[in-house]
Amino acid sequence: MPAALTAVQRTLSNGVHLVATPVPHTAAVSLYVASRAGSGSEPVELSGVTHFVEHMLFRHGSHEPGAFACAIERLGGQINAATEPELTAVGAKVPSEAWNDALQIVARMVHEPTMDPDEIEKERTVILDELALLDDLPEESARRSVLARLWPNHPFGREIAGTATTVRALTRDALLRRAVEMFAGRNTIVSVAGALDPSAVLDVLADVFGSVPAGSREAYPVFHANGQESGRVQVIRREAEQAYFSIAGFTPGRASRDRYAIELLAAVLGAGFGARLVLELRERHGLAYDVSAELGYCGKHGVLSIDGATDPDDLTRAVAIVLGELSDVADRGVTEEEFERARAYTVGGLVRSLEDSAVVAAWHAREQALEPSPLPPDALIDRVRTVARSDVTASAQACLAPSWPLIAVAGPLSDNTDIPTELVGSGGG
Amino acid sequence: MPAALTAVQRTLSNGVHLVATPVPHTAAVSLYVASRAGSGSEPVELSGVTHFVEHMLFRHGSHEPGAFACAIERLGGQINAATEPELTAVGAKVPSEAWNDALQIVARMVHEPTMDPDEIEKERTVILDELALLDDLPEESARRSVLARLWPNHPFGREIAGTATTVRALTRDALLRRAVEMFAGRNTIVSVAGALDPSAVLDVLADVFGSVPAGSREAYPVFHANGQESGRVQVIRREAEQAYFSIAGFTPGRASRDRYAIELLAAVLGAGFGARLVLELRERHGLAYDVSAELGYCGKHGVLSIDGATDPDDLTRAVAIVLGELSDVADRGVTEEEFERARAYTVGGLVRSLEDSAVVAAWHAREQALEPSPLPPDALIDRVRTVARSDVTASAQACLAPSWPLIAVAGPLSDNTDIPTELVGSGGG
Repeated sequence: MPAALTAVQRTLSNGVHLVATPVPHTAAVSLYVASRAGSGSEPVELSGVTHFVEHMLFRHGSHEPGAFACAIERLGGQINAATEPELTAVGAKVPSEAWNDALQIVARMVHEPTMDPDEIEKERTVILDELALLDDLPEESARRSVLARLWPNHPFGREIAGTATTVRALTRDALLRRAVEMFAGRNTIVSVAGALDPSAVLDVLADVFGSVPAGSREAYPVFHANGQESGRVQVIRREAEQAYFSIAGFTPGRASRDRYAIELLAAVLGAGFGARLVLELRERHGLAYDVSAELGYCGKHGVLSIDGATDPDDLTRAVAIVLGELSDVADRGVTEEEFERARAYTVGGLVRSLEDSAVVAAWHAREQALEPSPLPPDALIDRVRTVARSDVTASAQACLAPSWPLIAVAGPLSDNTDIPTELVGSGGG
Repeated sequence: MPAALTAVQRTLSNGVHLVATPVPHTAAVSLYVASRAGSGSEPVELSGVTHFVEHMLFRHGSHEPGAFACAIERLGGQINAATEPELTAVGAKVPSEAWNDALQIVARMVHEPTMDPDEIEKERTVILDELALLDDLPEESARRSVLARLWPNHPFGREIAGTATTVRALTRDALLRRAVEMFAGRNTIVSVAGALDPSAVLDVLADVFGSVPAGSREAYPVFHANGQESGRVQVIRREAEQAYFSIAGFTPGRASRDRYAIELLAAVLGAGFGARLVLELRERHGLAYDVSAELGYCGKHGVLSIDGATDPDDLTRAVAIVLGELSDVADRGVTEEEFERARAYTVGGLVRSLEDSAVVAAWHAREQALEPSPLPPDALIDRVRTVARSDVTASAQACLAPSWPLIAVAGPLSDNTDIPTELVGSGGG
């Protein structure tokens, strides 16, 4: 990792955390303004309020529709925003010489919540359309069923965008209050990456964000796994050509010493065309066009999710093969060959992604917002490199107990669809 | 554009065209091996054969499932492939020091078509799953309806992956014959980009590709627009929460002098959050989460496609607004403000994308395969920059006649759904 990628950081007295990272040889500067407030702290009746505010950022400060986005795009840049369970962020990438102009625009978006009532009503119908688009994806119904049962009675198990009922009921007051909470000083992280002098950048950022009220740091409700889960498999009947499956369970969280071993376990199983589940389901059995394994984190937990689709007649067999491979990896561990592929693929992908200033800017802000011990990219790559094959095998054994997975399937399925549920004796490749 | 991005090119006596482009300051090398043969030359009974061969490339040369993909990923790289109407390509990106190993792997994929019968059967079910996944997307049914009516009796109007019927019927002989045609010398273009010495790269490529038989250059059937189109609107009834619309028509082709004006017209209408159709449908009327305008080329034609989704009750109004804006842009032209946004957004996006060696490698191969007059990126950017606002207005006037669009809508629609069809008097913002 070249020293050029070393971030310079500063925390202002109002709590705003600033990061500037030099990325030489790039013609673009990336800004990433993040809030520590995501959807995961919402009371159930306000479900979707954070995501609604994220949408409204683009309607703030002006009555000209799309004024902020147009302004960024006229600079030759691009802008987007996203809401996650534990973070909300606006990201922009612009030609280097325009970075200060872009910063002023993004700062207005997060600090001038006009919340014009007419604009709220327009955005409400846009969000209802977004929810309906998600309803049209059969894989979403499987995914949602698993998440809701994994996190019973906790916002981590709810849809980030809320439901049609909650979105219809959100008031201007609730949106305004949430907007102020989200971008209070103690919740704000501003990260800039590009071919710039980092200390000069920090001075500019301190000027722009120094006078924001501190507010209070976002707190998330603690999750207690308390056995409300009813049934390990849910079968969702809906018209479709394919049958969709979602299989997920908890893994060690961000603070666990097994974390990087589990990251490589997820890569062994599902990252790239050479991953074990892809080789088994697609290459060896011809049963699925696509299957993936992804690792995410919420609160103190990790979640490993395996999603795919297959012909409805092959669904039982496909799920049995996935569970069989999970069982096998827990019983017999990973081979040297698949371990090396997963490690090289993971490290190679990380190194390449860091050539993009947008990845670098987001990296440091996200570490600051989400991680108990924020790491620079080179330190993370070192940790991945020092994981041993035996660590991956041990973490699979510790994590993948027979009753580990929750499962949902969605598609044109009959009442007596028989889906295996446990890792032990569930078949195999 | 730095001189560093200047491509060095060579055509071998067997017709293989080689390109090497230095991209300094990157830790990765990208390979792009393209065939001039795409799905657009397939007889109707062989529909999907090119795409099937593209899938089989990953099963060639070995009986170990996923061997080629695993080999690339063990180098720390990634690989993918895609079939288009006039091109099929394999792209790989690997750490610089591994580029020659990756080249040997990709060369075996395209030159050792084993077509093992068992492997063909496995891949056949994978492709049938892929077709079923597409069938599950309501936006696909709208898009397909428009394309089929735009290109009646021509492969450009058919699905690239074929139909379940043709895919089930494709024989090993047909696949083998197509594989040999596709990567014959006269159809092959090999492009490499990265921090490498371009003439040394060309020597290596000439060694690897110099002995391929020349074969014959792919020919595409000429398209005659001859009025077989039946009805300007097709209403497709299917269960869904949203109603999906696809609106498309011909535009000037690759050789037209209006080409770059039309590119900017498409950007004015649909590229970025500040595009006119996004501002009208989403920002001003709150009618759609997403709407896009895209320009593509097939044969001698361009095709402008506008796709979006809305609440079924708002569909008539949403389509009327899109047609009204197309009509308005033809009648009254584009404003200085939207012209400047579209130009800055287009040029900025191009410049930034060229920092990625994968974009550079693909660029030169695609220009060579698809363009009557291949251009380097800096020349294209110059052409976009020299388009005047009046050119965009003139091209809109010339292209967008009242009967220009073909329309398809898909969703939970009643028999008497009333969809406007013409640009004149169709409403407006």
